[in-house]
Amino acid sequence: MQIIHRVSEMQRWSDAQRQAGKKVAFVPTMGFLHEGHLSLVRAAKQAGDVVVVSIFVNPMQFNQQSDFAAYPRDDEQDRRLLSELGTDVLFNPDASEMYPDGYQTAVEVEKVSQPLCGAHRPGHFRGVTTVVAKLFNMVKPHAALFGEKDFQQCVVIKRMVTDLNFDLEIVAMPTVREADGLAMSSRNARLSPAQRQTSLCIAGALNTAQQLVGQGERRAATILRAVRDTISGQDGTRLEYASLCDPDTLEEVEKVTRPTLLAIAAWVGEVRLIDNRVIG
Amino acid sequence: MQIIHRVSEMQRWSDAQRQAGKKVAFVPTMGFLHEGHLSLVRAAKQAGDVVVVSIFVNPMQFNQQSDFAAYPRDDEQDRRLLSELGTDVLFNPDASEMYPDGYQTAVEVEKVSQPLCGAHRPGHFRGVTTVVAKLFNMVKPHAALFGEKDFQQCVVIKRMVTDLNFDLEIVAMPTVREADGLAMSSRNARLSPAQRQTSLCIAGALNTAQQLVGQGERRAATILRAVRDTISGQDGTRLEYASLCDPDTLEEVEKVTRPTLLAIAAWVGEVRLIDNRVIG
Repeated sequence: MQIIHRVSEMQRWSDAQRQAGKKVAFVPTMGFLHEGHLSLVRAAKQAGDVVVVSIFVNPMQFNQQSDFAAYPRDDEQDRRLLSELGTDVLFNPDASEMYPDGYQTAVEVEKVSQPLCGAHRPGHFRGVTTVVAKLFNMVKPHAALFGEKDFQQCVVIKRMVTDLNFDLEIVAMPTVREADGLAMSSRNARLSPAQRQTSLCIAGALNTAQQLVGQGERRAATILRAVRDTISGQDGTRLEYASLCDPDTLEEVEKVTRPTLLAIAAWVGEVRLIDNRVIG
Repeated sequence: MQIIHRVSEMQRWSDAQRQAGKKVAFVPTMGFLHEGHLSLVRAAKQAGDVVVVSIFVNPMQFNQQSDFAAYPRDDEQDRRLLSELGTDVLFNPDASEMYPDGYQTAVEVEKVSQPLCGAHRPGHFRGVTTVVAKLFNMVKPHAALFGEKDFQQCVVIKRMVTDLNFDLEIVAMPTVREADGLAMSSRNARLSPAQRQTSLCIAGALNTAQQLVGQGERRAATILRAVRDTISGQDGTRLEYASLCDPDTLEEVEKVTRPTLLAIAAWVGEVRLIDNRVIG
């Protein structure tokens, strides 16, 4: 596995692959890789001839400096995992390579960045779309893979790709869960054993909602009340939002009459977790 | 000369050129081509193996709907001129191809977009950087050529290219002038014969400023007073701004001790003209 730190070297590598007729598949990550990331890398090996994985903890997408500082990192393990999977290139630029002095540009997707996480993390998606646009210009992929655990991020990035005419395909892959249902996240490492148990209420709330819909319940207000009760019933949790919305526009719905996104963000102690499920 | 209207066809054409090892040079325009544009096309033929010229009057960069409506167009003459110069592709998308329903993304360069024209045309550079980012992803050029008549635009686009890591070269070409000194602009067509004469005061003010500096004057305030007097001395003119600033950062200077950008925007009747010169 080749490790590339410089933008220009990354661009020349991708140019050479394209010139040789190879299809480049790309998995952008913030590192501290778990099985969710690894499933994206495996899918990338199917989607392309060569696979690039980037690791960059992007300061621009953290609305709280404390969250950025606390974000877990393990470069050595990440390298080992990616190498074992047969990744071709680990692209690992540092912050001064990504945001040199004088940097002043942003990419913004206006509507679908507003609700859900966008409403609670000001500037978050602006940071995401900016860094992803930069990474696309660095890696020049034919396909880029993202996990549906960050469902809104997938919607926002697909919109950016369409709107700015990036000539590549976005592949959204299903959320990978622990055996007990918790969605995999690098942030799970920050949960205490007791919090780890408490956090199951989030996936539990998604299941409860699906059951209600299965029983014929259509009213969003009723379903969301059950979601809130399930999460707030646990000590040490704080529901940030629960929303039933259109999976394409992210506009809230009053009735669940089609496949509908149930998106949840909740704090367990000092750790913010998100999860979602398309129900209906 | 091939005429392409669809984004996907443009991308496939450029892919084929790149695959064949050809260097793609690109001149983005809003049409109604004059000698300034044509000088860019000639330079593009030197800079690349194949030349793409786009014509798209971009509604997003007009802050006034009336200016957009009044912007002159002559598709037939544009086609003839480009064909005569040996342009390979005229890329001419329509507005629904560029901004389809649901469009909601913008690219913004924060600092260098603020002063000068940015201060007087809210949203103008946001529209410029967005459409140019889109065009870069459509045409995939190795080099793109812009005229220095729009000096701030050149600065803003260079900044965007650096910040978002577009893998291409920006070539800024000198302003082309009429025999009497008026900077060429599609908007000149809207001047009456009397206004056409009046408009010479703008290039005259740039020359006056250079003469003052040549005589040893260093104080920006003194130079700008002479500029204002030259333009305001003419009936039917209104100076929008005159600024002496750093050619890279566009920050205003108090003394002209290095090569310094003198940028002017002035109204002659209902027509807004801009011009500039690096003096010192």
